[in-house]
Amino acid sequence: MPKDTGFSIGIDFGTNSVRALVVDVPSGEEIAAAAWTYAHGEDGIITDPRQPNLARQHPEDYEEGFVRTVSQAVRIAGANRRFEPSKVVGIGIDTTGSTPLPVDRHGRPLATLDDFRDDPAAMARLWKDHTAHAEAAEISERALAGGYPYLSKCGGRYSSEWYWAKALHCERHNPAVAHATFAWVELCDYVPALITGNHDPRTMMRSICAAGHKAMYHPSWEGLPCAEFLDGLSPGLSRFRERFRHPALPSDRLAGHLSDRFAQRTGLPAGIPVAVGALDAHLGAVGAGIGPGTLVKIMGTSTCDCMVAPLDDSIPDIPGVSGIVPESVIPGMLGIEAGQSAVGDIFNWFVNRVAPSGYGLREQMHAGLTEAASKLRPGESGLVALDWHNGNRNVLADPLLSGLIVGQTLATTPPEIYRALIEATAFGARKIIERIEEYGVSIERVVNCGGIPEKNPLVMQIYADVCNRPMQISRSAQTCALGAAIFGAVVGGAHADVPAAQAAMTGVKETTYCPDPAAVQVYEALYRIYSALHDAFGSVGSPRLDRVMKDLIAIRQHARADA
Amino acid sequence: MPKDTGFSIGIDFGTNSVRALVVDVPSGEEIAAAAWTYAHGEDGIITDPRQPNLARQHPEDYEEGFVRTVSQAVRIAGANRRFEPSKVVGIGIDTTGSTPLPVDRHGRPLATLDDFRDDPAAMARLWKDHTAHAEAAEISERALAGGYPYLSKCGGRYSSEWYWAKALHCERHNPAVAHATFAWVELCDYVPALITGNHDPRTMMRSICAAGHKAMYHPSWEGLPCAEFLDGLSPGLSRFRERFRHPALPSDRLAGHLSDRFAQRTGLPAGIPVAVGALDAHLGAVGAGIGPGTLVKIMGTSTCDCMVAPLDDSIPDIPGVSGIVPESVIPGMLGIEAGQSAVGDIFNWFVNRVAPSGYGLREQMHAGLTEAASKLRPGESGLVALDWHNGNRNVLADPLLSGLIVGQTLATTPPEIYRALIEATAFGARKIIERIEEYGVSIERVVNCGGIPEKNPLVMQIYADVCNRPMQISRSAQTCALGAAIFGAVVGGAHADVPAAQAAMTGVKETTYCPDPAAVQVYEALYRIYSALHDAFGSVGSPRLDRVMKDLIAIRQHARADA
Repeated sequence: MPKDTGFSIGIDFGTNSVRALVVDVPSGEEIAAAAWTYAHGEDGIITDPRQPNLARQHPEDYEEGFVRTVSQAVRIAGANRRFEPSKVVGIGIDTTGSTPLPVDRHGRPLATLDDFRDDPAAMARLWKDHTAHAEAAEISERALAGGYPYLSKCGGRYSSEWYWAKALHCERHNPAVAHATFAWVELCDYVPALITGNHDPRTMMRSICAAGHKAMYHPSWEGLPCAEFLDGLSPGLSRFRERFRHPALPSDRLAGHLSDRFAQRTGLPAGIPVAVGALDAHLGAVGAGIGPGTLVKIMGTSTCDCMVAPLDDSIPDIPGVSGIVPESVIPGMLGIEAGQSAVGDIFNWFVNRVAPSGYGLREQMHAGLTEAASKLRPGESGLVALDWHNGNRNVLADPLLSGLIVGQTLATTPPEIYRALIEATAFGARKIIERIEEYGVSIERVVNCGGIPEKNPLVMQIYADVCNRPMQISRSAQTCALGAAIFGAVVGGAHADVPAAQAAMTGVKETTYCPDPAAVQVYEALYRIYSALHDAFGSVGSPRLDRVMKDLIAIRQHARADA
Repeated sequence: MPKDTGFSIGIDFGTNSVRALVVDVPSGEEIAAAAWTYAHGEDGIITDPRQPNLARQHPEDYEEGFVRTVSQAVRIAGANRRFEPSKVVGIGIDTTGSTPLPVDRHGRPLATLDDFRDDPAAMARLWKDHTAHAEAAEISERALAGGYPYLSKCGGRYSSEWYWAKALHCERHNPAVAHATFAWVELCDYVPALITGNHDPRTMMRSICAAGHKAMYHPSWEGLPCAEFLDGLSPGLSRFRERFRHPALPSDRLAGHLSDRFAQRTGLPAGIPVAVGALDAHLGAVGAGIGPGTLVKIMGTSTCDCMVAPLDDSIPDIPGVSGIVPESVIPGMLGIEAGQSAVGDIFNWFVNRVAPSGYGLREQMHAGLTEAASKLRPGESGLVALDWHNGNRNVLADPLLSGLIVGQTLATTPPEIYRALIEATAFGARKIIERIEEYGVSIERVVNCGGIPEKNPLVMQIYADVCNRPMQISRSAQTCALGAAIFGAVVGGAHADVPAAQAAMTGVKETTYCPDPAAVQVYEALYRIYSALHDAFGSVGSPRLDRVMKDLIAIRQHARADA
């Protein structure tokens, strides 16, 4: 099939819903999309009031979600006279993660079998399930105490959100499920295996993106952690290592071909190439046009910041950066992942919990507060905040940190606080940028994607001013599904490689937010204060804080005098 | 007149209104009260939208207020068969301060004369008028640079609220008024002079309480600051010193006797002894039963904390304590005044500005938030705040400090913040208590008065737990007017001296808030965190703050585990 024709389908399995996107391969034009909210639980998530950390998903929703959204997207695409199902060259998959599910030796999710039907212990453990916090601490402790290198690529600390913590938690707390579990399979590996019919857990393709960022997989120690390390956590835990295909692969590799069964159910021809899956944020970065020198920020309730660097560059481990995994984003390149544990969540907390309703109903409050905050000049609030309401993922990598705001007077208003919270997340973003550059990875441009950059110009302008860099916005509003479609196009042979596909299929919007020199200067002074607080409360030395409040007043007075 | 009969009248000139209280001298029983809101301005205060720091009062309101409230209170008292006007043994006066007014050589307020009628520059400058902030800074600077001792008794810094700053501001900005001003008279000196007919500014009695706390008057430098100091600020400023009767006097001294004119207008007999006036907070302390070993806290929008100590004790200057003036509270004793620049104002700020209306209409929000905050256990919020939203009056004496709150998570609620703000003011109160005791003035009991102690048991319980001391509440809800009445009784000869009058006329309520040992322990840990923040941001050394957030989380988890 020639390059200048054909379509690719990307399917994005999100936290609450799944969406399928049909993309024109030569241009990247998105000709059809369909979404479906998972049927089980509330908004697709199964919870337990007795265990607030529990968040599960029913695996049936993944199969149904694939069939519903792909068949609907294909139907919608049919309205385009250029489209026909036979022109689909490939399929790509991205999912949340780490979202592992226990399967039997035939690759069947336990929660779909009679013995365990509707048992939450046998369901997929959604990324935000934190029931395994004790197991995560235990894994970190064993790695550090035993001198194992396994944490060196994932920010120095194992998370309760990740693969092995969840598998270990099941071993400890759900013996019947553990006994029946032949393998733990990441959602991004499960879906390609399911739709291609390659069900055997021992031979199904495994994503290096998920394995590297979530399961301590790395080529330098030949894959997953060694059996001795795993069995030391729980005897027999290493059986899951044995049933894990090595090497794990990037997404330009073939997971298989669409099976007859799923072809019939979706209206597509059988045999379409299906790419190895990957995590949503990483494929989102691809859909936003990531490449060497480009930082992609995926901003939502939290952020994921992705970079790539040539594999042959000698990039050192970057302290405090969550993940550095070969080929996790673009094949042949090193993937670097960082992020902030709360961004939109902090704004939502203020709006939903703290701010008065004088700014409208809750839906309108973000707009009302944003409008009022837009009228303030940088520094005018006299406030500085720390954005650690959900701990700090990077660069301090410390979940036991919390929020702080300083500079309040009896005249402090909600828009001032709201703006200070936005600024705090921008300062946190700058800390990550500075850390990455400090270790030799230079950042030439920043592309933002996600709901906040699409909807909130104030946030983007503040980020441009605080970071003193132009902020670009991804052209696509569905970068994750687009990234998956790009890999579909690559495994389908429509483009030679990922960079070529990106050049054709991705782009940025016309509007770029450029730094305003006057604002940059004020934020430079405020960032010095943020840094002093950051270091003092984040255990980085003991900066003096005795000038903080006075400097804030001076900055405020200066901002008002300029008005 | 025997001691076991007779009545005294106390008149309290507040910020918005004046109230008169008729008190039974042997028992302290309050048999009649009348109040009147000043007629001029909004709630008695004349403001100027172009000058937000301006707050003036029309002197006519003081005369009308005295006549209206005293005549009404006397009428109401007439319903008591024991009362008759001839049984009134004395009158006492307390007022806000520093609230000086410019008068001519006959003691007539300029704003009542044709040339200046209704000119705000010629009116009384209410305590909370801050137009003179530049002049206050200039006075502090000159005192420090010139090695003058004048700030040593008033906390080390002259305030824009005080006498000389206001007089100097008028010299600089209102030359016509300044030229016509023969003397500046504190409101608490003006009212006794007015009603006794002793109008001449050079001979009218001056309150040592007002002069000592607001005008840098002290016996050790023979009264007001020297002419050379004053004229260096503005040539001729020392003329006000020459027209200021020395020595200034405590309130057990006679200002004069009720004149025929005011006797006729109030329904009282002429000739009743009138005490030298004093500031409201200080007489409030007397009405609350102050004596050696008793700290009286007058809690409202801000607080005033009063202590007395025997004059012959060698009490040193206490660094960071606002005022130490002989006889300013009780004759023959040293008066010590400290305070917090915002307490109720911080709670009001949160309710009026920041908190959502889900806790009721604004009037009901304090009650709603208090109820929800009452259900929290100490430490459960994981928050600590600094109570410096209006700067810090004591013990840091630094107006350029501001508020701070640390420990927020995405789950932090308004009642948690509200409780943290209450706790912050309690920690601030403890700092003052510790500082006073550190300098050898021991505090055996604490009596609270004002609106907050009357209405909010949660605040009182938190203060008891934080300070690890029982908190008593004054029996009278009108301690200022009662304190004035006590001095009326003393100058009337009904009691031998102030302590004797207090023994008969004051008391505390039955309910005492006692420390709960479990809460005391938690607050001990939180106070250590408050102190670290206090010292770090308040320029007292450089404590390490790297454990603050972790300690708060540990305290929170412990509190929740106990629940």
